[in-house]
Amino acid sequence: MTDDKNNPGTCPVDRGLMRVGDRWSMLVLRDIERGLTRYEQLRASLGIAPNILARRLSALVGAGLIAKRRYSQRPPRDEYLLTDAGRDFLPILAAIGAWGSKHNGGGALTRQIDIATGEPVRPVVIDANSGAPIGTRPLRFDYPDQA
Amino acid sequence: MTDDKNNPGTCPVDRGLMRVGDRWSMLVLRDIERGLTRYEQLRASLGIAPNILARRLSALVGAGLIAKRRYSQRPPRDEYLLTDAGRDFLPILAAIGAWGSKHNGGGALTRQIDIATGEPVRPVVIDANSGAPIGTRPLRFDYPDQA
Repeated sequence: MTDDKNNPGTCPVDRGLMRVGDRWSMLVLRDIERGLTRYEQLRASLGIAPNILARRLSALVGAGLIAKRRYSQRPPRDEYLLTDAGRDFLPILAAIGAWGSKHNGGGALTRQIDIATGEPVRPVVIDANSGAPIGTRPLRFDYPDQA
Repeated sequence: MTDDKNNPGTCPVDRGLMRVGDRWSMLVLRDIERGLTRYEQLRASLGIAPNILARRLSALVGAGLIAKRRYSQRPPRDEYLLTDAGRDFLPILAAIGAWGSKHNGGGALTRQIDIATGEPVRPVVIDANSGAPIGTRPLRFDYPDQA
């Protein structure tokens, strides 16, 4: 794990987590996905201290996952919209949700429904090359410094 | 977001993040996956303060993602192994890695190779019902308290 921008390391997992590696940031993305794009909406939904929310929003803007848009000049009010990189992260949240349902479930849970079929989605991470779920075929790590 | 065990909320994403929602915890899982199961190996790999590593390991054991196993009685030495719940989280790390490669790549990166085909995996989160990648079909949220 490194925060050195000049030497960010070779691990793509850490490369991802450097940008969005904490619970608040992921919950902010989740809330924006479900339409809570305004500061006050996010604050109310998350029950988070204003300075922490401001810091997370600023970090997510800096990391390129969300963009700030002024929707009112008087009074000045901003909303936060997902960028392409932010939208690319949403399937990961869906996979975390599937894990949470399975391993920390119990009680009624929010679900995501495919509008066309009416069925709840069942997020699974596959290898697009083989079509097989990750974890069902033997894999090895290929480290660049050992090449 | 809530830490109240008696009222864990209805969001499956938060249910997941309650268990493993920080960068260190995910990097510990990554390292155990690649065979660094011993405390000293994890400490050296992560460059993490001993008290922080101890706290993360203890939290991951408590959350049921890893289990401690004593591999030496004298001197007493423990290693940490993934549980079924921990192994279930690995595909999410693969998806985070794919995101990191795409949006925070640059330079040589570690890759996961399918041993049978020799090809790098291309992790994608799909809906197992439709087979379509999450994000390519319209979804809606179904909130239990609005049912």
